[in-house]
Amino acid sequence: MPTALLSVSDKTGIVKFAQELKTLGWQIISSGGTAKTLKENNIECREISEVTGFPEILDGRVKTLNPKIHGGILAIREKSEHAAQLKKHDINAIDIVAVNLYPFEETINKIPKPENKKINQEVIENIDIGGVALLRAAAKNYKDVLVICDAADYDNVIEKLNSKSADGEFKLALAAKAFRHTAYYDSLISNYLTYEKFPSQASIPLKKLSGLRYGENPHQGAALYGNGTQANKSVVISAKQLHGKELSYNNYLDLEAAWRLVHEFGAPACAIIKHNNPCGCAEGENVKEAYLKALECDPVSAFGGIIAFNKPVDADTAQEISKLFAECVITSEYSKEAFEILTKKKNIRLLQQPIPYAVEKSETEYRMLTSGMLVQDRDNELFAKTESMTKRSPTQIETQALDFAWKICKHVKSNAIILVRGRQTVGIGAGQMSRIDSLQIALKKMREIAAETAGKDTPLVLASDAFFPFPDVVEEAAKAGVTAIIQPGGSIKDQDSINAADNNGIAMVATGMRHFKH
Amino acid sequence: MPTALLSVSDKTGIVKFAQELKTLGWQIISSGGTAKTLKENNIECREISEVTGFPEILDGRVKTLNPKIHGGILAIREKSEHAAQLKKHDINAIDIVAVNLYPFEETINKIPKPENKKINQEVIENIDIGGVALLRAAAKNYKDVLVICDAADYDNVIEKLNSKSADGEFKLALAAKAFRHTAYYDSLISNYLTYEKFPSQASIPLKKLSGLRYGENPHQGAALYGNGTQANKSVVISAKQLHGKELSYNNYLDLEAAWRLVHEFGAPACAIIKHNNPCGCAEGENVKEAYLKALECDPVSAFGGIIAFNKPVDADTAQEISKLFAECVITSEYSKEAFEILTKKKNIRLLQQPIPYAVEKSETEYRMLTSGMLVQDRDNELFAKTESMTKRSPTQIETQALDFAWKICKHVKSNAIILVRGRQTVGIGAGQMSRIDSLQIALKKMREIAAETAGKDTPLVLASDAFFPFPDVVEEAAKAGVTAIIQPGGSIKDQDSINAADNNGIAMVATGMRHFKH
Repeated sequence: MPTALLSVSDKTGIVKFAQELKTLGWQIISSGGTAKTLKENNIECREISEVTGFPEILDGRVKTLNPKIHGGILAIREKSEHAAQLKKHDINAIDIVAVNLYPFEETINKIPKPENKKINQEVIENIDIGGVALLRAAAKNYKDVLVICDAADYDNVIEKLNSKSADGEFKLALAAKAFRHTAYYDSLISNYLTYEKFPSQASIPLKKLSGLRYGENPHQGAALYGNGTQANKSVVISAKQLHGKELSYNNYLDLEAAWRLVHEFGAPACAIIKHNNPCGCAEGENVKEAYLKALECDPVSAFGGIIAFNKPVDADTAQEISKLFAECVITSEYSKEAFEILTKKKNIRLLQQPIPYAVEKSETEYRMLTSGMLVQDRDNELFAKTESMTKRSPTQIETQALDFAWKICKHVKSNAIILVRGRQTVGIGAGQMSRIDSLQIALKKMREIAAETAGKDTPLVLASDAFFPFPDVVEEAAKAGVTAIIQPGGSIKDQDSINAADNNGIAMVATGMRHFKH
Repeated sequence: MPTALLSVSDKTGIVKFAQELKTLGWQIISSGGTAKTLKENNIECREISEVTGFPEILDGRVKTLNPKIHGGILAIREKSEHAAQLKKHDINAIDIVAVNLYPFEETINKIPKPENKKINQEVIENIDIGGVALLRAAAKNYKDVLVICDAADYDNVIEKLNSKSADGEFKLALAAKAFRHTAYYDSLISNYLTYEKFPSQASIPLKKLSGLRYGENPHQGAALYGNGTQANKSVVISAKQLHGKELSYNNYLDLEAAWRLVHEFGAPACAIIKHNNPCGCAEGENVKEAYLKALECDPVSAFGGIIAFNKPVDADTAQEISKLFAECVITSEYSKEAFEILTKKKNIRLLQQPIPYAVEKSETEYRMLTSGMLVQDRDNELFAKTESMTKRSPTQIETQALDFAWKICKHVKSNAIILVRGRQTVGIGAGQMSRIDSLQIALKKMREIAAETAGKDTPLVLASDAFFPFPDVVEEAAKAGVTAIIQPGGSIKDQDSINAADNNGIAMVATGMRHFKH
């Protein structure tokens, strides 16, 4: 009689599955909780302790870790010596293993990782040892054993048994799924227990949140994954979509960029993102003003852009947004009227994330290489210092504008040059291979579009994400009327740029921190 | 007497470790191969079968999966009921578990994943079940058990035992390492066994290859990781560094971009990368010509760039390269003279990767989001079709140039516009939020630098990574003398661009495939 071992923490579907196995003539072995459920439903089963001749000990920590169980799973059926050993030791072959594990993921989402390295006992108790061993043993011996780690597979297995079509490919797929499950499970455990940076081995857990219609381009398949922890609930992937069609791969990339940038600011702010770069960003007295000022920087590029706010969107702002073709809006809240105005547009996607984006301490960033990964601390800082480099120090109004410009600069692809008046970008030069080209793009934008909200009397300031190896940027900026500059400093040729600034009455500030972003 | 269980596949250091444990008064339990090694070195130990009263069965598949072992590991020492159960069942507490696993990683690096889903038996046999269960049980009970999964930790453990300083933090660090190891191990197994795309759970294995001085910026710590498989040996992380100081985070990013781009071409080709974008790319009769033509596109940006070749570098080319400040060169081979010329430059890094970059089928690309990951098929294709959209079809010489431009376009950050004469870029417009801006940047480069190698008589052609929503790019391109255009097509307003092309005698080709790259 074929034998199935059922041992599940989550009892969903187990009664039906067991009944169907019984109908197909299977014998069932089961453990404490699962056995109880089955018996309550009048399904006969053998207790594991009965099979092993050994009681469950240590509050259930040791139940199935027994040769009578693992021998029954791991024996290679076509090997006569294996069959002989089973017989000799009175071990029954086990042909199905259906196990789900202690809910470690749910547990750590209730109990955040402590900073003091004192791991909560509930977390430890939810590390499953016996269940993982059963899944892994069955998955290794997949040619002879069907392994099920997900209640969603019960029906499929029954159907395959019924139709006698559980072939090698089907069995392998179940085994691969079981190993993905244990890998994911141990990945969560190890990340929770690890306080070391850049350890010799690691793994990134991935849990599918949704499929995507396609990837960066239509010929690329894609899906969205979370990392299994909801520790950081302030993120884009936890946002609620209130309106509009499915988000695309590129929407997620841009929403992420927009959401992070807009939370650099305390006052009402707006960031408009296109192709993963801001094409306008501003603070205002209210979100409407912030939006209009952000839009003014480059209204042409803003077409089809992603708009983020750090404060709720009201009706006035919604009215303005609805004049533009925007792909997505993300904010903490929409007023009732704002929502009504925006949902009139069929093609806009509205996202709500009530929790402001919060930088996590010691966040790790991954960047893929072919067959590998660059791993780094995320760029979660702004300044190492703020030190005037020039004869003239910036005025208060220049200082505010420089601070504003510097925050944006960090979020623009390198080489990045940002021109700002007041608290409004008036020119963004992004992603150029030469710094002077980035300046020229920013200047061109400024001249063509001539954002006037801040007023021509407001000083024009410049931020550069990296230092100046030559004085050319400062010289060009001076010609364009820039009066203050912020940059990391630290070039061996800093003095050339300082001289150029001094000669033009420019106040230049060093931050001591570069913000390349590629 | 404290008890250590030693069961190692790799015997490195085990004799010394066991001796030192003995000196400290420990009892040792061990299995087949390890026990034999210890006895040969006159170190007394108890066999596991002696402890369990159960023989090793199924060719070693079942040895330690026994309550007498796992009870000894998993008992919580401070719980009197646990102590009583150990006593009742005559189970000895086990206080150290030192295990290393069957060499699954080495095995799969010998036996590539089969396309037909028939998994080699040697691979299956190298999936360790008992060892993983021991490590996981000991790691779960880390407050009472020291778990060692790496021979490199033996000395440290002995020292801690000697100085009685194996505190909670030390034990936790060992446990976290063990779980990182099992997570990594199962991640390799699951990836090897999985043929499904975008499964519900997955994990990415990471194996540290080297630390990095810093990340994208100096205030970010960083390290380089591989994925544990050497299946794709043609990649940058497998290249050999022949000269120069340590590679930086940004070097790796740029080398990756350069190496992938240059292998789009069959003829001798050169790509120069700066800030993750090409600033010049050309094919030539030989590598020197390719280099000079690539450089000519934007010699200012090329300063501090990364240079890749798809053919060996000879002395003539090295002579030319040594006139520029280049951060890195990567190629399959340097002639002896070339190597001598280049190594005179202290600050250049020379990399050798003899295997040409090969696109892997069904490659997966990861792009990080905060708390999640976008996962997609890598953009490993070029064309869905090549279809003339206009009255005039491109001439043969235009077709060649368009093909060349299209290959480069795919590797430039979006929005990307590439201007080409012959087989040489003459203007690259990268990373702009508006397509017309990318064209204007490309045109500006072309006019300023006026690369002449291909000759003004050679037709000027344009590639765009995405379709034209407006006819503006075509109109501007016509004014600049562009005679042929390649683009995906598929805009609802294609006809506007087609009309603009027809009105200007431009031949325009649709590829049916977009190549956004963000």
